[in-house]
Amino acid sequence: MSKPTPLSGFPEWLPPQRAIEQYVVDRIRSTFELYGFAPLETRAVEPLDQLLRKGETSKEVYVLRRLQAAEDASDESLGLHFDLTVPFARYVLENAGKLTFPFRRYQIQKVWRGERPQEGRYREFLQADIDIVDRDTLPFHYEAEIPLVIGDALGALPIPQIRIQVNNRKVCEGFYRGLGLTDPEAALRAVDKLDKIGPDKVAELLIETAGATDSQAKACLRLAEISAPDTSFDAAVRALGVEHPLLDEGLDELVRVMEAAAEHAPGLCVAELKIARGLDYYTGTVYETQLVGFERFGSICSGGRYDNLASTGNERFPGVGISIGVSRLLGLLFGADALSVSRPVPTCVLVALPTEEQRAACDRTAAALRRRGIATEVSPSAAKYGKQIRFAERRGIPYVWFPGSDGAHDTVKDIRSGDQVDADAATWTPPAADLRQQVTGG
Amino acid sequence: MSKPTPLSGFPEWLPPQRAIEQYVVDRIRSTFELYGFAPLETRAVEPLDQLLRKGETSKEVYVLRRLQAAEDASDESLGLHFDLTVPFARYVLENAGKLTFPFRRYQIQKVWRGERPQEGRYREFLQADIDIVDRDTLPFHYEAEIPLVIGDALGALPIPQIRIQVNNRKVCEGFYRGLGLTDPEAALRAVDKLDKIGPDKVAELLIETAGATDSQAKACLRLAEISAPDTSFDAAVRALGVEHPLLDEGLDELVRVMEAAAEHAPGLCVAELKIARGLDYYTGTVYETQLVGFERFGSICSGGRYDNLASTGNERFPGVGISIGVSRLLGLLFGADALSVSRPVPTCVLVALPTEEQRAACDRTAAALRRRGIATEVSPSAAKYGKQIRFAERRGIPYVWFPGSDGAHDTVKDIRSGDQVDADAATWTPPAADLRQQVTGG
Repeated sequence: MSKPTPLSGFPEWLPPQRAIEQYVVDRIRSTFELYGFAPLETRAVEPLDQLLRKGETSKEVYVLRRLQAAEDASDESLGLHFDLTVPFARYVLENAGKLTFPFRRYQIQKVWRGERPQEGRYREFLQADIDIVDRDTLPFHYEAEIPLVIGDALGALPIPQIRIQVNNRKVCEGFYRGLGLTDPEAALRAVDKLDKIGPDKVAELLIETAGATDSQAKACLRLAEISAPDTSFDAAVRALGVEHPLLDEGLDELVRVMEAAAEHAPGLCVAELKIARGLDYYTGTVYETQLVGFERFGSICSGGRYDNLASTGNERFPGVGISIGVSRLLGLLFGADALSVSRPVPTCVLVALPTEEQRAACDRTAAALRRRGIATEVSPSAAKYGKQIRFAERRGIPYVWFPGSDGAHDTVKDIRSGDQVDADAATWTPPAADLRQQVTGG
Repeated sequence: MSKPTPLSGFPEWLPPQRAIEQYVVDRIRSTFELYGFAPLETRAVEPLDQLLRKGETSKEVYVLRRLQAAEDASDESLGLHFDLTVPFARYVLENAGKLTFPFRRYQIQKVWRGERPQEGRYREFLQADIDIVDRDTLPFHYEAEIPLVIGDALGALPIPQIRIQVNNRKVCEGFYRGLGLTDPEAALRAVDKLDKIGPDKVAELLIETAGATDSQAKACLRLAEISAPDTSFDAAVRALGVEHPLLDEGLDELVRVMEAAAEHAPGLCVAELKIARGLDYYTGTVYETQLVGFERFGSICSGGRYDNLASTGNERFPGVGISIGVSRLLGLLFGADALSVSRPVPTCVLVALPTEEQRAACDRTAAALRRRGIATEVSPSAAKYGKQIRFAERRGIPYVWFPGSDGAHDTVKDIRSGDQVDADAATWTPPAADLRQQVTGG
């Protein structure tokens, strides 16, 4: 066959990048589990009617068909999931009788969207989601907990500082209703475009699509301008003179989210009243997340509170969740050369091979090191030692182990410093920093 | 919407099962890394022509199409991969200039096959593969290493003992050629059906499709009957009186595989000369793996040596690899109730909530425990303590933490034994067995 070429939008990492991805996913997982989120996976496919419940995303779905005619039709009309929230809502409804509520789960899986690829936008990408759902009603305090989990999960990584932008749909809807607007969703959709098209165009949209007067449109824009690292947004909104019970409720909730964040992680959250999240299903707090210094990348972690995603005729499971765009985050940081790994392979020690006849003895040395958690390979061939050392160098393996000949001790050499010492495979331990691959920023 | 129902062939685990799967995958990964295999992932899709290179599997492929007409055609003619070997071979060719050889990688991903679902056979399932590939030539000793890695990886799990059945394609081909058969591949395909259709039907097939005489067919069956837990198969084959240089080479290699296994892991491997592996691309050692006591399940881990999977006009990358059928293994063991987890959630401690006003203080306690690696949740509500304890019981959380009131010490209660002791969130540590979920057999 001829040499294959990459597929646009379907990123694949080289081994050092994949090592970094694995490290990042492991750290995120570990934080999620510390907060009691249980791991979950759903199948990659959903029935098309399930995927198309929100008309907006229909264009993004990849549909499956069997290459040859099927004996049975049970896998017809299936599409690849485009996020992890819709499959999770379906999973909760399907298994509600076997779950305990409030149910906390994390889910780290690939998703697929048939979009035009561009920087940081892929057709296949990895997401890491957490959600908390409850039966009938979901206590508000979980909306304050979600950003703290993300602060800890992303804060444990060698990546730039994050800033979670928080808003509450009730603030927007209550404000619009208090102004006298009758189609708050249309107003929200218009304001959602603020960063893309600017205030003048948003004002026009508000007038055209949400039936706003000129002064109502201006008030909506003044609300969207409000941004605060603390709870001072509350006074700023009230100073605009609009009143509505839903606005009061939303402001109280947003204050509580900001207070919890200030106590747990000062500087993590900012109240940003222009944040709307395009998706229709959010009903309370909404989140977007910027990397400080890389704001041009857009949000790398978004979500919010939803009330109607998982419901049948007689059951309702409101929830709150957030999704880290792992591929997006890594693709952007790789592009900026902002992450590196100490070595591309897990291997800490290469056991050198004096002659092919000694392979069994060298395998025993390797097994002794592995039993104590030290990742070890035996040299591919009994080439001259200089060549074996160069092999270790090329692979990034820091230590080469030399079997002692004629009763002499084995020795181990740090090939970076050249230091070589006597060693016993039953007791020698590398420095902690060399035991596993280390990921660092920059 | 109405209550959703499961999709045949697309298994999804409940939280306790998923916890077991996660544990199993983590252990397998950890062993792979101890042997210096680097993590890798490939995209889920391959160009159809790549997937259809082996005609046999064409019926199994799921093809993608965009739901709506595309602006560009760059994602036309893509299918979901049906194994991890074909994508890996493509990855090696595509990135050869950026890899160091011999290249060792592991890959744990879902694969898809449009087959009719049945017990232990899925349309979407998880595989865990290792492969070692080299440029131009691959030293034989890697064929002896692969079963040792699997022995360690699966041996570290609380599952029934495994037995790796080993054979060598050169033994079969050399034997068939030594007998005078001119189409050894047809003979191999016939013998491959031995367990399914029995020796009489295989003899008929050998005569019909491989041009064998009656006595040649009998000789082929006698070879296939040979099975030995040690290197005694060598004499048994030579006693059949067939000679061919390729047979000698194959027997020598199979002896070396069995010797390495006997030294490293007595009882792990058995030479089983009927093992053929249907796939055309194997050229040397082949492996299948049985669970002792569950032989009826068939092979849960298979692979072999291949020489021609990754090659372009001027480059060739021979390799050897093996694939653990993780979903298949777990599905069968779940069906036999042969695995259990100590609790379905990661959470070790539930912090009880005296009143909603004390949530911030309880969050601080939880944060202190998490900082020391103890997975902790705060109670969903300030219900009566009895109700909060029952919530912990339902979730399987072993410890409930009670904030001290009026200057009294905090206490922590093991709700299984009822033992309750004074505790400080900065120092208290649960027994090691309770810190994380434990997976056990039976």
